[in-house]
Amino acid sequence: MIYTYLGPAGTFTEAALLQVPGARDAQRVPAANVNAALELVRTGKADAAMVPIENSVEGGVSATLDAIATGEALQIRAEALVSITFVLAVRQEIDSLEQIRSISTHGHAWAQCRGWAEANIPDAEFIPASSTAAGALALLDSETNHDAAICSPLVAEERGLKILREGIEDHEGAVTRFVLVSRPGAIPAPTGVDKSTVILPLAEDRPGALMEILEQFAVRGVNLSRIESRPTGAGLGKYFFSVDVDGHLAQERVADALAGLHRVCPDLRFLGSYPAAEGLSSSVDAHNSDSAFSAAHAWVTGLKEHLEH
Amino acid sequence: MIYTYLGPAGTFTEAALLQVPGARDAQRVPAANVNAALELVRTGKADAAMVPIENSVEGGVSATLDAIATGEALQIRAEALVSITFVLAVRQEIDSLEQIRSISTHGHAWAQCRGWAEANIPDAEFIPASSTAAGALALLDSETNHDAAICSPLVAEERGLKILREGIEDHEGAVTRFVLVSRPGAIPAPTGVDKSTVILPLAEDRPGALMEILEQFAVRGVNLSRIESRPTGAGLGKYFFSVDVDGHLAQERVADALAGLHRVCPDLRFLGSYPAAEGLSSSVDAHNSDSAFSAAHAWVTGLKEHLEH
Amino acid sequence: MIYTYLGPAGTFTEAALLQVPGARDAQRVPAANVNAALELVRTGKADAAMVPIENSVEGGVSATLDAIATGEALQIRAEALVSITFVLAVRQEIDSLEQIRSISTHGHAWAQCRGWAEANIPDAEFIPASSTAAGALALLDSETNHDAAICSPLVAEERGLKILREGIEDHEGAVTRFVLVSRPGAIPAPTGVDKSTVILPLAEDRPGALMEILEQFAVRGVNLSRIESRPTGAGLGKYFFSVDVDGHLAQERVADALAGLHRVCPDLRFLGSYPAAEGLSSSVDAHNSDSAFSAAHAWVTGLKEHLEH
Amino acid sequence: MIYTYLGPAGTFTEAALLQVPGARDAQRVPAANVNAALELVRTGKADAAMVPIENSVEGGVSATLDAIATGEALQIRAEALVSITFVLAVRQEIDSLEQIRSISTHGHAWAQCRGWAEANIPDAEFIPASSTAAGALALLDSETNHDAAICSPLVAEERGLKILREGIEDHEGAVTRFVLVSRPGAIPAPTGVDKSTVILPLAEDRPGALMEILEQFAVRGVNLSRIESRPTGAGLGKYFFSVDVDGHLAQERVADALAGLHRVCPDLRFLGSYPAAEGLSSSVDAHNSDSAFSAAHAWVTGLKEHLEH
Repeated sequence: MIYTYLGPAGTFTEAALLQVPGARDAQRVPAANVNAALELVRTGKADAAMVPIENSVEGGVSATLDAIATGEALQIRAEALVSITFVLAVRQEIDSLEQIRSISTHGHAWAQCRGWAEANIPDAEFIPASSTAAGALALLDSETNHDAAICSPLVAEERGLKILREGIEDHEGAVTRFVLVSRPGAIPAPTGVDKSTVILPLAEDRPGALMEILEQFAVRGVNLSRIESRPTGAGLGKYFFSVDVDGHLAQERVADALAGLHRVCPDLRFLGSYPAAEGLSSSVDAHNSDSAFSAAHAWVTGLKEHLEH
Repeated sequence: MIYTYLGPAGTFTEAALLQVPGARDAQRVPAANVNAALELVRTGKADAAMVPIENSVEGGVSATLDAIATGEALQIRAEALVSITFVLAVRQEIDSLEQIRSISTHGHAWAQCRGWAEANIPDAEFIPASSTAAGALALLDSETNHDAAICSPLVAEERGLKILREGIEDHEGAVTRFVLVSRPGAIPAPTGVDKSTVILPLAEDRPGALMEILEQFAVRGVNLSRIESRPTGAGLGKYFFSVDVDGHLAQERVADALAGLHRVCPDLRFLGSYPAAEGLSSSVDAHNSDSAFSAAHAWVTGLKEHLEH
Repeated sequence: MIYTYLGPAGTFTEAALLQVPGARDAQRVPAANVNAALELVRTGKADAAMVPIENSVEGGVSATLDAIATGEALQIRAEALVSITFVLAVRQEIDSLEQIRSISTHGHAWAQCRGWAEANIPDAEFIPASSTAAGALALLDSETNHDAAICSPLVAEERGLKILREGIEDHEGAVTRFVLVSRPGAIPAPTGVDKSTVILPLAEDRPGALMEILEQFAVRGVNLSRIESRPTGAGLGKYFFSVDVDGHLAQERVADALAGLHRVCPDLRFLGSYPAAEGLSSSVDAHNSDSAFSAAHAWVTGLKEHLEH
Repeated sequence: MIYTYLGPAGTFTEAALLQVPGARDAQRVPAANVNAALELVRTGKADAAMVPIENSVEGGVSATLDAIATGEALQIRAEALVSITFVLAVRQEIDSLEQIRSISTHGHAWAQCRGWAEANIPDAEFIPASSTAAGALALLDSETNHDAAICSPLVAEERGLKILREGIEDHEGAVTRFVLVSRPGAIPAPTGVDKSTVILPLAEDRPGALMEILEQFAVRGVNLSRIESRPTGAGLGKYFFSVDVDGHLAQERVADALAGLHRVCPDLRFLGSYPAAEGLSSSVDAHNSDSAFSAAHAWVTGLKEHLEH
């Protein structure tokens, strides 16, 4: 197996990938950005890509949401959660916060530590980096202009950076959710606690279109655990929705909801069913169970046997 | 073919039966009441029964609604509409309204002519009859106490009764809908303008239970043309619903709605699909057409082929 | 106070009226039918009328449902429940069931004892009476043709009729609900366990119209305890709905739902809020409580204070 | 009036601000980021801030969505649309695409031109800048490392940069929507084509919570023109929704929907009603018009006058 991931090495994304059984010993290829990672998968140069899809503080990761929603079909095979905590790494000659005049990190990390930075190093200039690891490793480079970097504990430890502060994130307990994406293939059998992801372009721009979609879920008791609107690029007000639901294609209520959605939203895209990382099982009413669907199907099939032609 | 119907001969029900192709030359057995007619069918002594189900003024016919909803399964094979108009038949010696001191007819007919009667013969006593025909034919009997009867034009003409007034119904244009009921058997192929009837006992006594049922229709674009609540007999507040929808079991949106209803209301009863008498076709949105259902089904089936076991 | 009721004396309706505090000592005027009773109220000849509206076996009482839904406005001021049980009264010379060749009662009573009659006196002819009391009292008349009558225990006892069987109703535990109707006036203050009745003509004949009505209740958490469709008389498929809801006009969720209904159904008719006879209190979610409505109203009013003109 | 905006000067945000009547001659203070701009407003150092909220390609601007949803209350007073088109500015010594080894711009601009860049300068390294203007102006600095920048036509022209290509955006017709934010105050009177913005934290984490919110809009015919889910920061799966609707607080259907939302979502935040930039008027059904609401309100008020206390 060849894995790719949103690099460089030492980011949270690599930490997510290392959760995948076997990934530690497999080939791991960092990619420059989400699109590059997915392109390696689409062209067969990698078997699967680990990319971030949602952060509990920053929200959906647009690049991923858009990249898996369009273009050549892909499939989500697994998800992984990584707790996000940041350290403040500094150049060797820096010993106190007062000395810091500039600080570099990725925009997302900056967003998650901005409160701390504004309170503790209010005069430091923010210098955007292409990744948290890039900003941190640049501290080892004598030509670097910035004094400090915000990065993951992993990269700081692995590269022996000088750490001035730990846990500087504004929201304790932040979590990022990552998805492992491959070319379409077999859908893993249900584990009992599964999720499914589906992309729903709004077929028509009219009142109630979103509610019509939600009703297809509601009428079968399918719970949404995530919904994100994204522009289609065709103009303001033209959206598609990226939705996670509790349940698996192998469960009739999910399959039946997908069939209903296909009617009102024929360009939908099914991105797969896969084990849920959270391990929570949502309860299913008896009338939405597989046996209720089977009984209903059998009953209607029985009725249809009496149809004259 | 042996037909039975809510008798006696000469009522509107026989007029409805005569609309059935071939019924004029078939054996027609009047029954004393709706239950008796349906019992002849259930025991095989008649092939089908014509019974009234709904009047445009008086509403649903409880005896029929209840009788076909419970007991041994029956099937509606056709419906028939009969315009309801009443004549005032009188004893030979009666020549003017002033002479009428008593008037007999069935309670339903009385309800439909009460306004006329109160305005024109306010002092006449109402004497309930077991049918309009019975009240009318009694005028030929010298021992009868009443002076007048309200009945159908058919029986008055066929039996040569003296008619003092015609068209005495309060609501011009009243129509009664009749259904032809048989033992369960083949369901006639769709004609393009069809109805289906279903009995829906409310599974649970809770807010929103009715709306949950209606949503199963709405989410597939199935239109209700009639809904009637009836007590189950188990106490106040315990209802079943008798529902007519536009469409045929052979149409996917109807079959899919029935499957959905079976889940939330497992004791439902399907009473058949049959040609609609009104000849109106309700339009179906593209996303509720058979082809939309087929495409959706094919798509989900395709997805399921990738399921691992 | 002058009360009228669906007579004659000795029927279940008088039993219902006697439940009203003070009615036992007030003037009680029997009326020939529901319309006559309501006409006495409308013309001021009576202060209130007790009429049946629903039976747990037979369903809604069409005459009442229609009469209070149309014509000059009326108001429901109270409801009463009466357990329905029937006795078999016979002529003095009758000593066994085998001797009975004919039996008289009102059609509704007949419907509720038909099973017993068919099993025990299958050959007896049914002779419809204008009321259970009328059929029973006729037994005291030597010119009467029928041998037996089905009537309430009350009339049998009060008039000293010979009783051959008791409790002959097919459905044990049957209950009839009666309403006390007056001209419009003060609405009694809420007791905590109240009902409201509203008449809803379907404004348009189109799919989803009923659901649109139900949503106005659902979105405020107002529970329906009764819903009955009745023809408007304008043709098959033209209905109004007679609806009881849990709650009182003085409760904001009910008042707000009524306002919402007025928009989608401007010809609606409010028939009053009154104490519920059953004494059951339906729970109300916090977000549908009066305080939630008050807080919401205050908040929006506060926002509107900032509107420029 | 003192205006602030997401700086630096020359970005699309300043172009949006210049659309505001009077802004061209007013004091305009660029801010380093969205939060800084809003802080100037909150502390009274500026009267209003122009910030981007949504791009037709990139989607919602998280910093703005979050900043106006939390913290001290703010109000949206206007919106502005700016067509987004990018030019490729280069150092004076660069004459062809082949010479470009590095290119700088803001991440959002990069996202919108990535396709062009990958096709035309595939080997150029991307160097993130804190703004498009910053990346562009750095070209004038001899110490700058990058050869090219992606920026707005405005800054390129104003500063006399060398332009190698125009219109390099991947999606022609991209538009960014900006909002003008002030401290809470008077709400501008309706123009006939208005929008309102509301923040809706999901009160409970349960199936159907989103649909419950949408129903409050649907039942009053209020159309959503934008819906965006954002994390509350309290953990994965905890969202608030940022919603734009067609209509104005002064319109009853909007005010009534807000009242309904307050009940199911008491922590909601109203961010104002303001003229819609697009100039499209959505049609309102008669039963959702102000007159329908007034009539309904008057009717219920009339009913309530009869309440006893």
